[in-house]
Amino acid sequence: MSRSKLIYLPLGGAGEIGMNMYVYGYGAKGKERFILVDCGVAFPDMDSTPGVDLIMADIAWLLARRDRLEAIFITHAHEDHVGALSLLWDRLRAPVYARPFTAAIARLKMKERGHPEEKVKIVQPWPAETEAGPFRVRYLPVSHSIPESSALVIDTPAGRLIHTGDFKLDETPGVGEPWDPEIWREAAAGGVKALICDSTNVFSPHPGRSEATLTDNLAALVAGARGMVVATTFASNVARVKTLAEAGRDAGRSVVLLGRAMQRMVRVAEETGVLTGFPATTPVEDALQVPRENLMLLVTGSQGERRAASAQLSRGKYLGLTLKEGDLFIFSSKTIPGNERSVIQIMNAFSEMGVDVVEGDERYHVSGHANRPDLEAVHDLVKPQMVIPMHGEHRHLREHANLAISKGMAAAVAPNGTMLDISGDAPEVLDHIEAGRTYLDGTVLIGAMDGVVRDRIRMALNGHVTVGVIVDESDEALEDAWVEVKGLPEKGASGAPLVDLIEDEVAEALGQADERTVLDDDKLETLVRRRTRQAAVDLVGRKPEVTVLISRLMAE
Amino acid sequence: MSRSKLIYLPLGGAGEIGMNMYVYGYGAKGKERFILVDCGVAFPDMDSTPGVDLIMADIAWLLARRDRLEAIFITHAHEDHVGALSLLWDRLRAPVYARPFTAAIARLKMKERGHPEEKVKIVQPWPAETEAGPFRVRYLPVSHSIPESSALVIDTPAGRLIHTGDFKLDETPGVGEPWDPEIWREAAAGGVKALICDSTNVFSPHPGRSEATLTDNLAALVAGARGMVVATTFASNVARVKTLAEAGRDAGRSVVLLGRAMQRMVRVAEETGVLTGFPATTPVEDALQVPRENLMLLVTGSQGERRAASAQLSRGKYLGLTLKEGDLFIFSSKTIPGNERSVIQIMNAFSEMGVDVVEGDERYHVSGHANRPDLEAVHDLVKPQMVIPMHGEHRHLREHANLAISKGMAAAVAPNGTMLDISGDAPEVLDHIEAGRTYLDGTVLIGAMDGVVRDRIRMALNGHVTVGVIVDESDEALEDAWVEVKGLPEKGASGAPLVDLIEDEVAEALGQADERTVLDDDKLETLVRRRTRQAAVDLVGRKPEVTVLISRLMAE
Repeated sequence: MSRSKLIYLPLGGAGEIGMNMYVYGYGAKGKERFILVDCGVAFPDMDSTPGVDLIMADIAWLLARRDRLEAIFITHAHEDHVGALSLLWDRLRAPVYARPFTAAIARLKMKERGHPEEKVKIVQPWPAETEAGPFRVRYLPVSHSIPESSALVIDTPAGRLIHTGDFKLDETPGVGEPWDPEIWREAAAGGVKALICDSTNVFSPHPGRSEATLTDNLAALVAGARGMVVATTFASNVARVKTLAEAGRDAGRSVVLLGRAMQRMVRVAEETGVLTGFPATTPVEDALQVPRENLMLLVTGSQGERRAASAQLSRGKYLGLTLKEGDLFIFSSKTIPGNERSVIQIMNAFSEMGVDVVEGDERYHVSGHANRPDLEAVHDLVKPQMVIPMHGEHRHLREHANLAISKGMAAAVAPNGTMLDISGDAPEVLDHIEAGRTYLDGTVLIGAMDGVVRDRIRMALNGHVTVGVIVDESDEALEDAWVEVKGLPEKGASGAPLVDLIEDEVAEALGQADERTVLDDDKLETLVRRRTRQAAVDLVGRKPEVTVLISRLMAE
Repeated sequence: MSRSKLIYLPLGGAGEIGMNMYVYGYGAKGKERFILVDCGVAFPDMDSTPGVDLIMADIAWLLARRDRLEAIFITHAHEDHVGALSLLWDRLRAPVYARPFTAAIARLKMKERGHPEEKVKIVQPWPAETEAGPFRVRYLPVSHSIPESSALVIDTPAGRLIHTGDFKLDETPGVGEPWDPEIWREAAAGGVKALICDSTNVFSPHPGRSEATLTDNLAALVAGARGMVVATTFASNVARVKTLAEAGRDAGRSVVLLGRAMQRMVRVAEETGVLTGFPATTPVEDALQVPRENLMLLVTGSQGERRAASAQLSRGKYLGLTLKEGDLFIFSSKTIPGNERSVIQIMNAFSEMGVDVVEGDERYHVSGHANRPDLEAVHDLVKPQMVIPMHGEHRHLREHANLAISKGMAAAVAPNGTMLDISGDAPEVLDHIEAGRTYLDGTVLIGAMDGVVRDRIRMALNGHVTVGVIVDESDEALEDAWVEVKGLPEKGASGAPLVDLIEDEVAEALGQADERTVLDDDKLETLVRRRTRQAAVDLVGRKPEVTVLISRLMAE
């Protein structure tokens, strides 16, 4: 019988920032028992995933071993850690554990998808312990940009692991638990085999700044404003939302929460007790009666999301509210790479209205992740045998691993699908499994490699031509094919209509087609597609996608 | 008869960074004579312009007055100032003026499109003068990130204008003319009515840095490298290319130029005399014989362009060259907003190869544009009656106008299509013309509002369904419709094939259709489209584009 091994296998989050999903296993080969840490989503973009609603890790590998999955542990309530839970739960069907605020958010999502809320079980923080097969798991509070973020202390027969989740070292986070090196020292005291560690900000060379450094800056900014003030941040950054609300209140303004996520987060945070003392808010219906210089709106859409409140305000009226000359809009946020154009579009729309915009100003935003010196501080405090960088693009993982190695620790770059044996003194690659992506597309889950998105991208780049061909009762292809185009210029360079020109070309091809071709759907389709493409290349310089519909008439 | 007026009308560049195109006019209403300054392109993106090759201003307004267009003046050879010239020249057919290096680039482009090169005439810099109707135009050298950039001093019966083009204040630019406040003072001496001024960097608070500040940094970086060194920058930034090449040579490396644009720019710069003393280069065929630690490649693709050398190297072999562990890749460039994802993708691909990447480091890149204090220095030096901010998004124009106003000058925010009367003491809005965009799409020019790109975006977001319907000789719709889908999931949430389910739905609709609907193509199409969409919404949660092909069989 083979020796029991302790296994680490990232399915998502190690190769991108987003869609976190990490498998830990313990046992003899083929008999390992597993836990899953986090079950998050990533967000689509037009370049690579047009039309897709959400992206998550492909869990095929795990599903094939579902009977050995003991539990799912969620570190915190950010979408990239919990967003896929309600989408994948009915496939995974393992107990889910989370702390109260995180659980409340997860339960809302479960409910929305028609799943039983009670499958999400509430756990208490360190030193409370949850057993899951060979694993004993404790939630170690850390500071981050959402309340109740936790690292997981995972005790296994092969030793103790600390999986950091997302974190920063903030001793004054405003809302939520401060960074507390004492409990970390306590957790590390008996020796730690592996620190599986957030890598997001490994390229940021300076120590991270505290949430509290923003309070005075934001208060001064709002106090100095003349017209309406509107501020956006991630709704889940409850500490920031509170700081902004207090800045509004202290400047004598009525505070209005706009956008469903903003209202929901504040409500859940209050209900679960992580948020107290939030200033009184004014319902949006009443906001219209308040003079604009006495209003402070806190809105969703810090990343320029088209349907969020900030984008809607930038396009004009939203729930009766409009911005105008002399108003102030504050992005209390960082623009995530890929969202720049959307944010810039909003900034320019506000500029056209005469609204002043504050964006990208570090006086009004701090990151929620540990910077390089902070990571080093945690390495030094935990003193693990090995560091396994997680949550980051490849370059982050590599940089983080090099950092750990430079300090004398063992480390490994393990992107999604890399199965590490971490039983020994240093990580060893056991296997590579196929780590794909699954898309929520409308109401359906599809595979990233199904070709659906590829076809969409091709139609977006090259347009689409439909050609209808009729083969009559005597097996003759009728020469007047029907052609319709979408996403292609109406006229060729010569000025002649593209549809007519393609119809002529196809008619010529059909007229010359031999009997063998006409009788065979595949051959006929290939002939028509090729001729259509060639015609489009000649006429408009573009190679479109082509759908050929062949109708064969039957003799009566 | 109406009084003669001096007119400023931006068609492109005032509302975006890119596609510069500015009209100046002088004369009585309806009889103005015009000149055009710059004729540039902007670049497409997947979000808003999928499949488009190049974007330029809509010149319909100018074409309707083409008989009064005296000349086209190009300030410098960047694509966003000269890139549309060869695409629009056969419509505009006015004399084109440029300095020798710029003219050489413009002529190459004219030749590629089959236009006569000699239509681009070469002019000499200040004090040489070109007459164009009521305008006398002189090229005033400025420093920028390409050689021979020039402001235009435009004398008109209503006074002198200075149109800055793109510029920075660099007294040690390496290649090209240094910033020379003396000739600017000379040009401004007689009084300047309006300064039409680059706004790109108005939000950058510190004085701009000189190209020369990079020399030692780049030399040290390359000297310290172990393996192959590859550096990318805009090919047109000839000074940077030279600095990089010298850093390579001084480190004992063979310098190789990779990418057509890189080779062409260096060649044209040498031929026109703006570049001298460029280190000897090694042809790529010979590079394979050089040990990698003795190689320095200068490559195209600083913005992550898919087909450029840097992206190709990141995907594997390019012209026989491959990067590997221990090599160094330098982005001596700034990533333009919108290109982040492409650049990040390249960085991660290199990370996977073990290649070290330097990016976003201001030791290795400086901007080519005047920062806020530099703009103020030029305002102070020129002392114009009014400042008209140009080349910038709306927020840049607004900020720049506010800056000028705060210093006691008249100013106006004039986005594309805003016709200003600048004859008087302050700018006055005369008119707003429709300022659209034209796309080069494959080989055809199309209008931005033609619906072509809108259809592509819809297909990218929602997929496409083709439905073929046959109406027989007795005017009955045959119930078995043919359906083909592209860019939609194969199966609905229930697991049943989407195509079958839509065919059933359409068959049902056809079976219930009344005669009036069946006899009318539009009605029948609407019926089928609606039912198809509804079926797709029900089955996969998505509302696709639908093409309906109706074939009506004729009785013989």
